[in-house]
Amino acid sequence: MPAIKLKEISTRAPESISKEKTKGETDAMLSELDDLQNLLYAENRHSLLVVLQGMDASGKDGAIREVFGKLNPQGVMVKSYKVPTEEELSHDFLWRIHSHAPPKGMIQIFNRSHYEDILVTRVHKWCDNATAHNRMDAINDFEKLLALHNNTQILKFYLHVSPEEQMERLKERTSNPKKMWKYNEKDIEEAKYWDEYMNMYEECFSKCDYIPWHIIPSDQNWYKEYLITKKVYETLKGLNMKYPKLKSDR
Amino acid sequence: MPAIKLKEISTRAPESISKEKTKGETDAMLSELDDLQNLLYAENRHSLLVVLQGMDASGKDGAIREVFGKLNPQGVMVKSYKVPTEEELSHDFLWRIHSHAPPKGMIQIFNRSHYEDILVTRVHKWCDNATAHNRMDAINDFEKLLALHNNTQILKFYLHVSPEEQMERLKERTSNPKKMWKYNEKDIEEAKYWDEYMNMYEECFSKCDYIPWHIIPSDQNWYKEYLITKKVYETLKGLNMKYPKLKSDR
Repeated sequence: MPAIKLKEISTRAPESISKEKTKGETDAMLSELDDLQNLLYAENRHSLLVVLQGMDASGKDGAIREVFGKLNPQGVMVKSYKVPTEEELSHDFLWRIHSHAPPKGMIQIFNRSHYEDILVTRVHKWCDNATAHNRMDAINDFEKLLALHNNTQILKFYLHVSPEEQMERLKERTSNPKKMWKYNEKDIEEAKYWDEYMNMYEECFSKCDYIPWHIIPSDQNWYKEYLITKKVYETLKGLNMKYPKLKSDR
Repeated sequence: MPAIKLKEISTRAPESISKEKTKGETDAMLSELDDLQNLLYAENRHSLLVVLQGMDASGKDGAIREVFGKLNPQGVMVKSYKVPTEEELSHDFLWRIHSHAPPKGMIQIFNRSHYEDILVTRVHKWCDNATAHNRMDAINDFEKLLALHNNTQILKFYLHVSPEEQMERLKERTSNPKKMWKYNEKDIEEAKYWDEYMNMYEECFSKCDYIPWHIIPSDQNWYKEYLITKKVYETLKGLNMKYPKLKSDR
């Protein structure tokens, strides 16, 4: 795929797009998604893995709530990856990821993921380039394993916000009582590494491309939700799933 | 590596080798192994994965008892892989394997392994050739992940018995009260597929070669135990491990 330059991609919806109309389309797809998820579960042949990556305050939590929160929670699992524990660090970096790979019939969301091992770790030089490149190869192999050996559909989303939008959202966390719990003064420090993060993300998009990335303009939540919903909807729809027939004898 | 032809490899020790002397050497290595394992645990930088494969009654259980049973059980974990459960089958074939990969400092034994997914499954045509070859690629990628990303030393042993020795051992299970619990009439049926198994093993040795296989002549337990002990001993010795120094301040 051609190299992705994040600076050249807008973080906003095109002006021509109507917010109201788009929200209506999102809702329509979401209600069909509920059926598609049921079908995924019933057919029990495929699974869906959704990887959400993005800078702090890029809207990962909101995407999970507004898109996947509308589905039957029995068929959706969410795993948020934080700083690895001591036990996790005593294994290869994909060990804690593989254990949460979705079984057939299920939708698994990763809020952050194995990609942190080639992003934050590189920005802070905890991981050298040779190791990072080996990890990229291992990530491609791993995603291939899930896709090829368990019919896992993998959707990788980068929530693309502008640094200005991020700063506004981080500041809101200091003033909005409902958001203060999310405030972490380290986030402001981390935001200073913006350009390094963008470089690392761009390399990750081009190298970890066995499964392609989707760049989601995310300054406006309604547009972000629309694009994610649309991609999930189209992916499940494209599986041409069928409800199993009644077992005639057993 | 050159193709392995199992028929051309003896299942017995060379005549020139003394049983008594060899047993003495095994014991000497085993007592050093105890120290090496302690060092592996203390240093906490490497891990060891031992994969045991072989036909029924080839002596896998005995190898575990006589070699690894001599070590501190706190540092050794054994996982026996049986027919996959329904939950395991809802994941890719390496999911149940990866979760038991050894953390740093530990020795993990696999009594049967992911290799069953390209052996018994192929012999009985539950898995087509294309799938089997994809699995072989996935196995190489997976073993590379463990080796490269967690310093895991992987030793893969094929316990090589003759069909005559196997049949004798299977029959002993019908008469020796201490072994009757192991008797399974299906084993006799399975033994009829001997040549197919040998073909599948040979292909597996040549294709799954990111980590090389060790063919262990296993008609005589003392020789089998000697060879496995020696390989494990040399592998751990070769790591040049050191006890960590006292932490001077914290």
